[in-house]
Amino acid sequence: MRKTKVLRDIDRAAIREELLKSGVAALTEKGFASVGLDEIMRSVGVPKGSFYYYFESKEYFVTRILQRYNERFSGGLDFYLKDENLSARQGIIAFMEKAKKNIIKYDYKRGCLVGNLSQELNTLPGALSMQVREVLLGWQKQLQTCLEKAQKAGEIEKGADCQQLASSFWSGWEGSVLRTRLEHSTTPLDDFGRFYLASVFHK
Amino acid sequence: MRKTKVLRDIDRAAIREELLKSGVAALTEKGFASVGLDEIMRSVGVPKGSFYYYFESKEYFVTRILQRYNERFSGGLDFYLKDENLSARQGIIAFMEKAKKNIIKYDYKRGCLVGNLSQELNTLPGALSMQVREVLLGWQKQLQTCLEKAQKAGEIEKGADCQQLASSFWSGWEGSVLRTRLEHSTTPLDDFGRFYLASVFHK
Repeated sequence: MRKTKVLRDIDRAAIREELLKSGVAALTEKGFASVGLDEIMRSVGVPKGSFYYYFESKEYFVTRILQRYNERFSGGLDFYLKDENLSARQGIIAFMEKAKKNIIKYDYKRGCLVGNLSQELNTLPGALSMQVREVLLGWQKQLQTCLEKAQKAGEIEKGADCQQLASSFWSGWEGSVLRTRLEHSTTPLDDFGRFYLASVFHK
Repeated sequence: MRKTKVLRDIDRAAIREELLKSGVAALTEKGFASVGLDEIMRSVGVPKGSFYYYFESKEYFVTRILQRYNERFSGGLDFYLKDENLSARQGIIAFMEKAKKNIIKYDYKRGCLVGNLSQELNTLPGALSMQVREVLLGWQKQLQTCLEKAQKAGEIEKGADCQQLASSFWSGWEGSVLRTRLEHSTTPLDDFGRFYLASVFHK
């Protein structure tokens, strides 16, 4: 009896994992409003009626998806920005190149989960909006730390406001990911990347 | 009999206008997926069953909304960028200030129609995606013309690529409008505006 329960718990955890993975795909391709739970359940091969056995609500499900997405994204960002073998400039370039590869890999269909959810602000539950905001501010803080280090190393002008520079990066980033998908070309990301790096770092 | 028909046509045109206006509000606040035609019809006080008397399809309706939005936006942009009494820098500032006022006026609820629709790419009809792309490229061209003029006047570095600069502006713009709504504060727009102007124009 106990063994059955343990097995059931393992199954449940495995299916939750699958649902989260499928949820990330669905939410980066479409948005909160367009994504049906039915579709996600179907892709994992679980009866649609059993959703609430795995997650208590759609909102909680999306909260977990965003948390998962953020762990990966934020980890990937630090992987490049904190690499001791790369300058700040090189780290940012490496991060952007990796992100571009991902966008191409998914044929320009997947955008940024944070960008997608932000566009749906007026229809999202309030707690979710706050979570989106915090995730983005977290990325901004990571970049700011990296820029401040570069500033100390003399790679960035002394008087520059690194918080403002980091904020501008994520605005340009979200906008150019959006435009890159729209144009089915990495040109907007390349344009913004070149512009940003040339503006921030000493020649 | 003919007089009745004329009156009916005037009514029809007037109601089409009202529906377009209500459609702009709905689509800038929410998105294509979340907007119900019922809601729009209700806001104008027209029976929901009569939608197809005014527009042949939801897609055509959105096409007309975007066209209308673009006329206003693009006109407003040129109003500032082509003002002979303003330098390019001052024109961009005036445009941004006006846009910020609008965002505050609608309590951060209304975003950019182009940004909203772009996030829904994968669920939009193909012709509509192309229209969104063309509208954005049109704004980019308007700004590029203005920057090229400033470059000739010596306000922008000779070697700068004005197309790339214009592209970067709209990426940063779309991203910072999105973040300004998310944070319920104009800080992201202010940050990006300051960063952009300081990077593009000679000190």
